[in-house]
Amino acid sequence: MQKPTVTKGTRDFGPEQMSKRLFIFDTIRKTFKSFGFLPLETPSMENLSTLTGKYGDEGDQLLFKILNSGDFAAGLTDADVQAGSKKLTPRIAEKGLRYDLTVPFARYVVMNRNSLTLPFKRYQMQPVWRADRPQKGRYREFYQCDADVVGTDSLLCEAEIVLMIHEVFRNLGIIDFTLKINNRKILAGIADVIGAPGQESALSVAIDKLDKIGKDKVLDELRERGFAEEAINRLEPMFGLGSKNTVEVIGQLKAWLSASETANQGIAELEETLRLVDQYGLADARVEIDPTLARGLSYYTGAIFEVKANGVQIGSVSGGGRYDNLTGTFGMPGLSGVGISFGVDRIYDVMDELSLFPASAGQGTRVLIVPFDGDARSVALPLLSQLRKAGVAAEVYPDLAKVKKMLDYANAKAIPFVILIGSEEVQTGMLSIKNMVTGEQTKVSVADSIQVVQES
Amino acid sequence: MQKPTVTKGTRDFGPEQMSKRLFIFDTIRKTFKSFGFLPLETPSMENLSTLTGKYGDEGDQLLFKILNSGDFAAGLTDADVQAGSKKLTPRIAEKGLRYDLTVPFARYVVMNRNSLTLPFKRYQMQPVWRADRPQKGRYREFYQCDADVVGTDSLLCEAEIVLMIHEVFRNLGIIDFTLKINNRKILAGIADVIGAPGQESALSVAIDKLDKIGKDKVLDELRERGFAEEAINRLEPMFGLGSKNTVEVIGQLKAWLSASETANQGIAELEETLRLVDQYGLADARVEIDPTLARGLSYYTGAIFEVKANGVQIGSVSGGGRYDNLTGTFGMPGLSGVGISFGVDRIYDVMDELSLFPASAGQGTRVLIVPFDGDARSVALPLLSQLRKAGVAAEVYPDLAKVKKMLDYANAKAIPFVILIGSEEVQTGMLSIKNMVTGEQTKVSVADSIQVVQES
Repeated sequence: MQKPTVTKGTRDFGPEQMSKRLFIFDTIRKTFKSFGFLPLETPSMENLSTLTGKYGDEGDQLLFKILNSGDFAAGLTDADVQAGSKKLTPRIAEKGLRYDLTVPFARYVVMNRNSLTLPFKRYQMQPVWRADRPQKGRYREFYQCDADVVGTDSLLCEAEIVLMIHEVFRNLGIIDFTLKINNRKILAGIADVIGAPGQESALSVAIDKLDKIGKDKVLDELRERGFAEEAINRLEPMFGLGSKNTVEVIGQLKAWLSASETANQGIAELEETLRLVDQYGLADARVEIDPTLARGLSYYTGAIFEVKANGVQIGSVSGGGRYDNLTGTFGMPGLSGVGISFGVDRIYDVMDELSLFPASAGQGTRVLIVPFDGDARSVALPLLSQLRKAGVAAEVYPDLAKVKKMLDYANAKAIPFVILIGSEEVQTGMLSIKNMVTGEQTKVSVADSIQVVQES
Repeated sequence: MQKPTVTKGTRDFGPEQMSKRLFIFDTIRKTFKSFGFLPLETPSMENLSTLTGKYGDEGDQLLFKILNSGDFAAGLTDADVQAGSKKLTPRIAEKGLRYDLTVPFARYVVMNRNSLTLPFKRYQMQPVWRADRPQKGRYREFYQCDADVVGTDSLLCEAEIVLMIHEVFRNLGIIDFTLKINNRKILAGIADVIGAPGQESALSVAIDKLDKIGKDKVLDELRERGFAEEAINRLEPMFGLGSKNTVEVIGQLKAWLSASETANQGIAELEETLRLVDQYGLADARVEIDPTLARGLSYYTGAIFEVKANGVQIGSVSGGGRYDNLTGTFGMPGLSGVGISFGVDRIYDVMDELSLFPASAGQGTRVLIVPFDGDARSVALPLLSQLRKAGVAAEVYPDLAKVKKMLDYANAKAIPFVILIGSEEVQTGMLSIKNMVTGEQTKVSVADSIQVVQES
């Protein structure tokens, strides 16, 4: 018999990991809710016609496709097979697994356009699937936690997202992070002033690598991408914008990019967003302006956000931005929105590496009840009911086993209290309660035992 | 452009539905936790070698298979295609979507056998997929919420499950339900005493339809299945066991089935389980013994559970039982366990039909703040921060719009309070707060406004 395995690039999450993951999910969900975002869930499967063409050629290849059910091969000819995988696929698969939460969200908005009240604020926390080559930190199934507001271009929404990012990370206990912010229009303006208007996509692909490959190699790549030497020279001021002071950077950008109307607009949006954030009274804001921040640009048209945790070598843990055409591909143009996505897997890694999970995050059962015989159960079972009624997670060791085995069980599950009930306890009504952390064992009444496990 | 749709048999869950679903999930999760079950999640995809052969031929056909990524058609010959879908499938698909939570749980247990502490109690709440023909109440993607304990054959676990079922449904507000309980050994004993030993599977398939098709047609089906007329006559006592009094039914079963050792054992197990339940002090127990209850038997070897809500025509909302060979198919025989599964979709339907969702279940944003101009934002934004800090879900209307539009927005989102801030409010510091339920509008200070929305 073959030993069973999980499929490549996927993972089981056992009790300890899951308890910690649930802490992250709960924290994000609570924060989303407190900002007025409402939950949405969409199916794991979408029609391939919904998914295909939305993520570029590479993305299309990374879609997991689902074989049609029933006799999918009926009617297939030799020619179909010889035509190759790419042409064969649509003949035998019409559904695929969700690749992100954005496209299903756009589909939902379009399908419900007549009943939705705009602006529409939704959050969505579900797994997505990508047929990527698995490697450290990259999985084929992973969760995304997205919050978006569509149907308004108010910069208050950008400010709210900046606030919400601070709230999420602080509620998680990740207090040392940096939120980088940029604006697509500033990138476009840079392209303008260096004499390469409209080239901000190519520009950003190269600039995006600055952290990884350094300035010289970025310039090499720009040359390869056909940027003129003069344009590259004019880019020089960009590399001197390293200040953490947002007011200073805005001043530098204004001076450098004054000739570009687009840049001016982007700078004004950024300035207004930061002014609004300030009005909220956000203490110790972790915002830095990074005019090189691009996040592949994708569909961003205004603000661009990216969050990294400091002190760990883990990539961005959150990112997002404003887009103006979320639903255009489904025939509903001009719907502006702004969103943010939190990466649970990376957040987990950060918190794990920095030991940021609170003790309560992994807490399961609070007390194990150990009856030594059948008689003891007559005391144990009503007590169990009372404990649970009092909100205490409690369980009973189901078998009659040696004490050591039962205490080992409590230790393995990190249960902090064990209540032992033998014939003496049944007779006297006083229970033995053992604190598994200190090892201390005391005798208490039934009523007191509930208080002991509740209080500490 | 084609209008986008969801794939057949799947559903979007919009904010209102999701808020109610989350109430169900949270309630079940909390109850599982209070009984000492810990969370587990397994990947959506499993190797087809893990899934195939576990659910019978019909089940195998209902598995969603995932097309191998990359150039899956390379090397396919005409002969492969002509061999038909069934033989072609393993050539082009090696993964499938999870069909239930039991098989992935068994795989997990086997893979982690050396590190797990037994008894192992886990709960799992995840979607499963079946390529069924969609119809009312039957979907291709739906959630299961399972709790199982493996590694012990103590009947305390059965009692705990009876308790937990009561707790879950009462916490949900479904107080009028019936928990039917049976034991595989009683069914086997019935087969014994009617002279058809070992035939309890065939017997149960027919008996399972008693509610739907009535006694006469059940007997016809038994004849068709080759049961002798004498055996069918001996079955007569079974149809007279309709009492809701468990003591009475146990007495009748003991009298009827006394000749069968297996039946006696099953009856004793049932009796002991009910005795333990009694010891917990469970008030108003909803347990009925139903010796015809089979739930298709599948892998059950001891107790069998099924829950139906009374007053609605919706099938079973929960079911489970004891099994002795969960992991045998993966080379780890003899692991006994007992589990229960809650069907969120049907529970939703029951609660919806009986209007059992509490008002809090759908509650999203508590207060909408409406600033009339840019100046008003200087009051609105700090207030927003304070409200959220006080645990109040609050949002700001992002655009400057007509009052009616903003109030319509609040109504559409069922937001109970709106705080209006114009130039007068900025000057006086007194805010206008509108109760959207009563229509009443009052003036309060900033501090009081927080109290108003918090308290009521």
